[in-house]
Amino acid sequence: MEELFIKGCVKKTPEYTEAHFYNIERRHGKMDTIAAISTPMGEGAIGIVRLSGEQAVPTADKIYAGKRPLMEVDSHTINYGHIKDPSTGETIEEAMVSVLRAPKTYTKEDIIEINCHGGLTSVNRVLQMALKHGARLAEPGEFTKRAFLNGRIDLSQAEAVMDLIRAKTDRAMNVAMNQVEGRLSNQIQTLRQKLLETVAHVEVNIDYPEYDAEEMTLEMIREKGTEVAEGVQQLLTTAHQGKILREGLSTVIIGRPNVGKSSLLNSLVHENKAIVTDVPGTTRDVVEEYVNVRGVPLRLLDTAGIRETEDIVERLGVERSRKVVKDAELALLVLNYNEALTPSDEELFKLIDGQDAIIIVNKTDLDKKISLDEVRQLAGDQPVISTSLLQDEGVDQLEEAIRTLFFEGEMEGGDMSYVSNSRHIALLEQAKSYVEEALSAAESGMPIDMVQIDITRAWEVLGEVIGDSVHESLIDQLFSQFCLGK
Amino acid sequence: MEELFIKGCVKKTPEYTEAHFYNIERRHGKMDTIAAISTPMGEGAIGIVRLSGEQAVPTADKIYAGKRPLMEVDSHTINYGHIKDPSTGETIEEAMVSVLRAPKTYTKEDIIEINCHGGLTSVNRVLQMALKHGARLAEPGEFTKRAFLNGRIDLSQAEAVMDLIRAKTDRAMNVAMNQVEGRLSNQIQTLRQKLLETVAHVEVNIDYPEYDAEEMTLEMIREKGTEVAEGVQQLLTTAHQGKILREGLSTVIIGRPNVGKSSLLNSLVHENKAIVTDVPGTTRDVVEEYVNVRGVPLRLLDTAGIRETEDIVERLGVERSRKVVKDAELALLVLNYNEALTPSDEELFKLIDGQDAIIIVNKTDLDKKISLDEVRQLAGDQPVISTSLLQDEGVDQLEEAIRTLFFEGEMEGGDMSYVSNSRHIALLEQAKSYVEEALSAAESGMPIDMVQIDITRAWEVLGEVIGDSVHESLIDQLFSQFCLGK
Repeated sequence: MEELFIKGCVKKTPEYTEAHFYNIERRHGKMDTIAAISTPMGEGAIGIVRLSGEQAVPTADKIYAGKRPLMEVDSHTINYGHIKDPSTGETIEEAMVSVLRAPKTYTKEDIIEINCHGGLTSVNRVLQMALKHGARLAEPGEFTKRAFLNGRIDLSQAEAVMDLIRAKTDRAMNVAMNQVEGRLSNQIQTLRQKLLETVAHVEVNIDYPEYDAEEMTLEMIREKGTEVAEGVQQLLTTAHQGKILREGLSTVIIGRPNVGKSSLLNSLVHENKAIVTDVPGTTRDVVEEYVNVRGVPLRLLDTAGIRETEDIVERLGVERSRKVVKDAELALLVLNYNEALTPSDEELFKLIDGQDAIIIVNKTDLDKKISLDEVRQLAGDQPVISTSLLQDEGVDQLEEAIRTLFFEGEMEGGDMSYVSNSRHIALLEQAKSYVEEALSAAESGMPIDMVQIDITRAWEVLGEVIGDSVHESLIDQLFSQFCLGK
Repeated sequence: MEELFIKGCVKKTPEYTEAHFYNIERRHGKMDTIAAISTPMGEGAIGIVRLSGEQAVPTADKIYAGKRPLMEVDSHTINYGHIKDPSTGETIEEAMVSVLRAPKTYTKEDIIEINCHGGLTSVNRVLQMALKHGARLAEPGEFTKRAFLNGRIDLSQAEAVMDLIRAKTDRAMNVAMNQVEGRLSNQIQTLRQKLLETVAHVEVNIDYPEYDAEEMTLEMIREKGTEVAEGVQQLLTTAHQGKILREGLSTVIIGRPNVGKSSLLNSLVHENKAIVTDVPGTTRDVVEEYVNVRGVPLRLLDTAGIRETEDIVERLGVERSRKVVKDAELALLVLNYNEALTPSDEELFKLIDGQDAIIIVNKTDLDKKISLDEVRQLAGDQPVISTSLLQDEGVDQLEEAIRTLFFEGEMEGGDMSYVSNSRHIALLEQAKSYVEEALSAAESGMPIDMVQIDITRAWEVLGEVIGDSVHESLIDQLFSQFCLGK
């Protein structure tokens, strides 16, 4: 079998997982050494080119000149030297080269980190030199993929690594960090263990019917099944917040002309250090602005479109603005304290009907002309906050309203084991429904082997969260979302 | 004196240099430990927080939890552990911490590098933790400034570090690398040594006139002075290319509507991997685009303004377009092979008169309607290249024309000791004129001590290149142009 694969006669299939073949490839010395730039692109003080694989150290030695060859230095040491072009002898860079030998490394393979003066040209040239002398350019996420394939981390931990990098707030980072450390994995494994015990019990029941006590088996399915269903549900209750923490809360600011939309934007941005990110793959004009409001990462939509002189309906028309507002997870509707409500205001109230929204009555520094009773009536359950953004009044209350709207009480416990990833949420939902089916099947007296199928499926589905039973193409797809060099 | 300084009674002056005080501060344990993020801002696989100073290791230990405290590990080792908030015990990050003890480090001080998962939030939190527990936020360039103040590198080497980071082409990088390695410093020091010998000789001549042989002294001034003048001139001849390599060649593309300006831009950009940089401190719209054409870094001006449907004169008016073109170091004038020359074309020829320019006759895939003789006559010495950008023809010739226009022959020698920095160029010009004055003064029989003044000044001015005698405010200003964390 191994021989056939190495000769290229066997294709990878879901049964023969990538990990399986990876290990074969490894035993046959077929795993190549990968290299990539691991620091963000741009001018910086330090740039790092990372190599991983069996040939990482000898490859680095070909382009490194220092006091001693890297082959001879201890693991986990930093070595000063120069990166050279061996064909010309030309010095390319001054570098500090870290040697990290397997297995105590990020990938569980030998790792070299070439730490050089951080400029685009400089780091690129060092990478090119490594590629020219034996390494292959790593795919996005390939270092972490190897950590997964080599069994150092499971899939949910690998996914959390990327969440950690993309985290917009401290809380989001804590959630990701806990997941990297294996907290979610442990919870999933505990649940799977319970399912496995049940399956084993059922198996015994089927194989040795004489050994049976059907009532006991049913009792066990009921007990364990309920425990698992509850455990899964508990994880799922954190999912909404977890997703917000991970992806940010898409937020839209609406209001008539000259009510203070730009002031609101500026006030949120200035108080909270916005992070502006280019959305990859789109033109430079499309930007997302993240604002961290008391731990809630607001993803401000369409900030380029916020002009004091126009409202969203005027600009986009009723249909498109309805869509923009509905697509957002939070709407901030700004009204003018100094003017009576207008039909336009009422139209905007209709836009946000039934949605998470906060009503901001701005310009309290001016004379009151609005009817707050009317506003409260239109707002219904939606909180109403009075502000004078000009005088920086009411911003605290607004921020607190945003926080309580999404994290009332529930974030306070400090338990940061949140499920935040859509893939995990979908799998947990599936697992839950399989377990519930098993429970109701058992109650209604279905044959025990039918019940077993549902329990096994639940076990499998939970396994997908941690990558125990996932299709290779999914793995490829997941890791391809990583950044280069990770 | 030291006591007075420490008590704050003595102000720093040019006589008492910063290096002087730095050493006093150091001896009295007054140097604080600095910290900064040393990787570029953005999402990346690795983010590094760097600390430097006497308290770097104990500061890191306060926020690090690993197998052993960092105080106890060997120098130049990498240590796996976690960054924690000591006040809450909360884990902030997983990290590999490098310990580099003085003096074999970048700053010649103890250095800690905390290598963590690279995300904005993550790296920021680790930095905040370091700042909270004893480190101070480093100013831009402060690590390199310490390397300079501690005498590991001189000023020209420090400046080259930044050039290295900003280098846009391999050649620019080689120039910077050579300068980092001290090649320019050595040449400057050799020249200064010659001046010093002359001064010493003159001193002896003045102090012990009986020892004199005036003719001999004059002879020496003539000989050494000429050598130094030639040496300085040799450095200056590389300056033009050096500056281009360092700063890029500002280039403007002009032409009537629909001659192929955008195609030219795209062709240059696509073949050569443009580097688009935001200009710091300006709005997001202003971008510079760098294109590396056979080692010549073109800085394409006003690329946002290149529209197929308008020409520069139409858009900006005659006066402003004249200014834009004159400010550029290279003009690329695009003409249409398929149309006879128009008065507008002739106007554009006038704009580029007397300037480094290349005339591109585009659309050779269509019928010839232009008079090439007329074009050549208007072009004068400026090279004329025929292209069909649509069919990717003539681009090679164009790129070669750009290269030879600026680097004909002179770059081929491989000697990369170029003077590229405007500050250095200005100082070398000054030194040259002092030496020349000394030479002519000596020839015209001026008193020998007058001659000596000029020679001493030349010696001082050359010293400023390597930072031997520079004003503190200049040093501050130079390092403030660095990026953070370097």
